[in-house]
Amino acid sequence: MEKELKRLREIERELSLLYGAIGLLYWDEHTYIPKKAVPQRGEQIAYLSKLYHEKSTSKELKGIINRLSSKTVFNKLSKIDQHAIKKHKKQITRFSKLPSSFIEEQMKLLSESHAAWLKAREAKDFSILEPYLEKVIAMTKKKANLIDPKEHPYNVLLDDYEEGMTVKELNLVFAELKPRLIGIINKIRASEKFKKQENKLSKMNFPADKQMKIVNDLKKLMLLEDDRTNVAQTVHPFEVSISPDDVRITTACRPGKPFFSLGSTVHEAGHALYELGLPRELKYTILFNASSTGMHESQSRFWELFVSRSREFWDFYYNKYQKEFDELKNVSKEEFYELLNQVNFSPIRIECDEVTYNMHIIIRYELELALIEGKLKVRDLSKAWNAKYKEYLGITPKDDVEGVMQDTHWPDGNFGYFPTYSLGTMYAAMLSNQMKKEMPLQKYIKEGNFRPILDWLRKNIHNKGATMFTKDIIKQICKRDLVSDDFINYLKEKYGKIYKL
Amino acid sequence: MEKELKRLREIERELSLLYGAIGLLYWDEHTYIPKKAVPQRGEQIAYLSKLYHEKSTSKELKGIINRLSSKTVFNKLSKIDQHAIKKHKKQITRFSKLPSSFIEEQMKLLSESHAAWLKAREAKDFSILEPYLEKVIAMTKKKANLIDPKEHPYNVLLDDYEEGMTVKELNLVFAELKPRLIGIINKIRASEKFKKQENKLSKMNFPADKQMKIVNDLKKLMLLEDDRTNVAQTVHPFEVSISPDDVRITTACRPGKPFFSLGSTVHEAGHALYELGLPRELKYTILFNASSTGMHESQSRFWELFVSRSREFWDFYYNKYQKEFDELKNVSKEEFYELLNQVNFSPIRIECDEVTYNMHIIIRYELELALIEGKLKVRDLSKAWNAKYKEYLGITPKDDVEGVMQDTHWPDGNFGYFPTYSLGTMYAAMLSNQMKKEMPLQKYIKEGNFRPILDWLRKNIHNKGATMFTKDIIKQICKRDLVSDDFINYLKEKYGKIYKL
Repeated sequence: MEKELKRLREIERELSLLYGAIGLLYWDEHTYIPKKAVPQRGEQIAYLSKLYHEKSTSKELKGIINRLSSKTVFNKLSKIDQHAIKKHKKQITRFSKLPSSFIEEQMKLLSESHAAWLKAREAKDFSILEPYLEKVIAMTKKKANLIDPKEHPYNVLLDDYEEGMTVKELNLVFAELKPRLIGIINKIRASEKFKKQENKLSKMNFPADKQMKIVNDLKKLMLLEDDRTNVAQTVHPFEVSISPDDVRITTACRPGKPFFSLGSTVHEAGHALYELGLPRELKYTILFNASSTGMHESQSRFWELFVSRSREFWDFYYNKYQKEFDELKNVSKEEFYELLNQVNFSPIRIECDEVTYNMHIIIRYELELALIEGKLKVRDLSKAWNAKYKEYLGITPKDDVEGVMQDTHWPDGNFGYFPTYSLGTMYAAMLSNQMKKEMPLQKYIKEGNFRPILDWLRKNIHNKGATMFTKDIIKQICKRDLVSDDFINYLKEKYGKIYKL
Repeated sequence: MEKELKRLREIERELSLLYGAIGLLYWDEHTYIPKKAVPQRGEQIAYLSKLYHEKSTSKELKGIINRLSSKTVFNKLSKIDQHAIKKHKKQITRFSKLPSSFIEEQMKLLSESHAAWLKAREAKDFSILEPYLEKVIAMTKKKANLIDPKEHPYNVLLDDYEEGMTVKELNLVFAELKPRLIGIINKIRASEKFKKQENKLSKMNFPADKQMKIVNDLKKLMLLEDDRTNVAQTVHPFEVSISPDDVRITTACRPGKPFFSLGSTVHEAGHALYELGLPRELKYTILFNASSTGMHESQSRFWELFVSRSREFWDFYYNKYQKEFDELKNVSKEEFYELLNQVNFSPIRIECDEVTYNMHIIIRYELELALIEGKLKVRDLSKAWNAKYKEYLGITPKDDVEGVMQDTHWPDGNFGYFPTYSLGTMYAAMLSNQMKKEMPLQKYIKEGNFRPILDWLRKNIHNKGATMFTKDIIKQICKRDLVSDDFINYLKEKYGKIYKL
C-alpha cells in the first residue's frame, strides 16, 4: 500500500509538472510569443495535452487506483487519501469512457468551431458559426451520454466544474434569484437617479502607464507575493498556475473603459490568492486544487465586488487613485463611487455591472440547458437570446456579436460552465456575511488592512484545497447551504442607497 | 517504407514540440519567472527532458530506424532521407549505450556540481568545487568509454558538438593558430599605442533604456523579423529556439561595460538568423538543425566580429549611436572604433577582445584534453590554468573566480564544447573572405544594407540545415578545408592598423 501510494504521488507530480508546462505555453501565447508562432504553439499545447491525457488514463495509474480502491486497502487509508483516491477513481472512469478517437475528433471540431466563431464575429454573421455549434452540441451530448447514459446530460457536464451540483439544485436557486433580481433591476430603471445618470465613464481615458501603476499597487495591497507571481498585459485577462510558487495574472488597459484594468486585476488576483494558498503539504497531488470552479469564482468575486467596489475601499483608496488621473480632478469620492457602480444595462456580460451580471448568466444557463435537452435548436438560438435579453433586461443587442456570439464558451464546447459564475457570486456574498460575523470586515477594508481578510480565506478555504467538496466547505463555514438571499440583500442595500429606491 | 517514414516524421515532430516546450521553460526561467518558482522550474525541465530522452530512445523509434537502415530499404531512400536516417542511427546508438541509471546519476551529479560551482564562486574557494569536478570528469570519461571504448575519449565528446572533428585535426589547426596569435598579441603589447592606451570604457556608463533602444534598432537592421522573434533582458545573454517561427534572443545592459549589450545582441542575433533560416521543407525533422555547434558559432561570430566591429559598420552607424549617449559627445568616430576594438587582456573570456579571445579557448582546450587524457589532475588544475594564462597572455587572475571557475562548462559536464568557439571564429573568417569574393561586402556594410549578406548566408548555410556536415559545407563554399590563415590575416590587417604594428 505504501509503495502504491508513493508511486501514485510520483505520477501526480509528473502530471502537475506537465500541466504547469502547458500553463506556461498558454501564458506565453498570450504575452510574449512572436505572432507567426501561434499555430506552432497550438501544436505544442495539443501535444503536451495529449501526453497529459495519456498519462492520466494510463494502465499503470488505473491499476494503482483500482488496487487502492479495493475495500480492504481503502479502509486503511487516511480520510484525505480516501478523498484523493475517490477523485482519481472518478476522473479515470470519466476519461476512460471517452475513446481516444472521440477525444481527437472533439479536439479537431473544437478548434474548427473556435475558428468559425472568430470568422463569424468578424463577418457579424451567425450563420457561419451555426453548423459548427450544432456539431459541438451533438458532440457534447454524446460525451455526456458516453460518460453516464443514465444521468441527465447537463448534470454530467456540470460535474466537470462543480462536483455534485445538479440541474435540480440550480433550478431551485435560480428560481429564487431571477425574479428578485428582475425586481431590483426594474426598480433601478424606474428611478429618477437612473433616468438622469450620465455615462461619463465612456468619455474618460486614463493613460495606460498610470493604470499599470495602480495595477501594481493593487497587487501589493492584496498581498500577492512578488516572488511567487507576476502581472502581464493581455487582450483578455486571466489567471494561470504554472507551479505552486508560480501563479500569474494578466490585465488589460482598455481605452474608454478606465476601470477595466482595476476590476480585472482585483478579480484575477482573487483567483491567484486561492492558488497561492493551496495546502503545501499536498503539493503536486490531486487535492492541491480548488474545490470547484464555482469556489474559485467566489474568491475572485469576493475581492472584486465585496472589496474593490465597496464604499469602504474607496474611503481608503480614492485619494491615491484620484492623484494618478487628471480626469478625476473634479470628481468627488461620492461621484466616483457611483460611477464605478453605475448600472449600465450593457448587452455584454464582461462589461456590465454587478446588478445585471447574474441575469446574463441566467440567460445563458436557460439557453444552454434547453440546447442540451433538445428543446431549443441552434437555428433559433439567436432569436431566443434576443427575446430573453428583451424580456429580462429590456435591451436588444444591436447584432449577434453583441449578442449570442459574445462569449467563446459554447463554440469551445464549455457547456455547464456559465452557472459557476453565479454560484461564485452567491458563495462570495455568503462568505462576506460570514466574515462580518467573525471580524470587523468593513473596518479592515477601510484601513486597507487585507491581511486578516486573507488569513480568514486561507484558513477557511484556500488551505482546504480539494480535500472537501465546495458544498461541504460552504456548509462548514456558513452553517447553511447555498442561498441567493445574501447576494440579493447585498444588492438591495447597496443599490437602494445609490439609486434612492 | 512510406509508412515508416511517415511515422518517423510524426515522432520527429513530437520530439521537436517537446524540445520547444523545454526551450520556453528555460527562456522563462531567465526572464519572467517569479523567483521562488525556480526550483520547481528545475523539476519541470528535468521531467520534460526525461520524456524527451525516453521518446528518442523508444523501442518504436529504434525499430523504425533499424528497418529504414537495412540495406535494401536504405538504398531506395533519397539522399536527404539517407542522411537523416544515418543521423538518427548514430544518435540512437549513442543514447542506447548509456543506461538510464547512468543518465539519472549524471543528471544528479551535474546538478550538484553546478550548485557547488556557484557556492565555490561565492566563497572564492576552488576546493569546494574540486571533489565534484573530479567526479564529473570521471563520469565524462566513463560516458565516452560506454559510447565507444575504442575511440579517443575526447573525440567521442567532440562528436556531440562538431560531428567528425577529432583531436588530431584540432591539434593541427591550433598548432598553426596558437604561435601566430601569440605573435600578434606580443606585438600589440609591445606597441607604443598599447602602452599609452586608456581604459576609458570602464568609466563610461550608458543608460540602460538607451542601450535597449539601440538593441531594438540592431534587431531591425539585422532583419530579424518582429513576428518571429523577440528580445528580452537576462543576466547572461542567450538564443533559444522554441519553434520554427519562435526564436528568441536575450541581452544584458551591464554597468561599466557599455558595449556589452551591443556585442551580445549582434552575437545572439547571428545565432537566431541561422535558426530562422533553416529549411522550411524539413521543419520538425532531425535535419531542421544547425550542421554543428561550430557552424552555429560561425554565424554569431560573423555578425559580431566581421560586421559589428568593423570600420565600415561604424561609418554607417556611429552618427546614430553617438546621438543616444551623452558620454560620446566628444568621442570621434575614430576614437570610438579604437575603444570598441581595444585589446584589453582581460582574464575573463566573455569580456575580452577578439585578439585574445581564442587564446582563452586554446587554454581551455589544452587543459580539458589533459584532464580527459588523465595527464592533469583536478587538484593541479588551478595552478595549470594560471601558468598558461601567464605564459600565453602574460596575465594572472586575481583569484579562481577570475580564473578557473569563470565558466560553467566544466562543472556542467560540457567537455569538448570550448573548441567550437574557435572553430566558429575561423569558419567565420573564411566565410567573410569568400563573401568578399562574391559580393562587395564592405560596401554593403557601409550602407547598412544587410539583405544581400543575409541572403548569401541563407542560401549557402542556413537553408542547408543539417543535411550536410559542417566540413563539407565549408569545403563546398570556400573550396578549402578549415584553416586559421583567414582569421590570422584579418587580425594582422585590422590590428596592424589600430596599433600601428
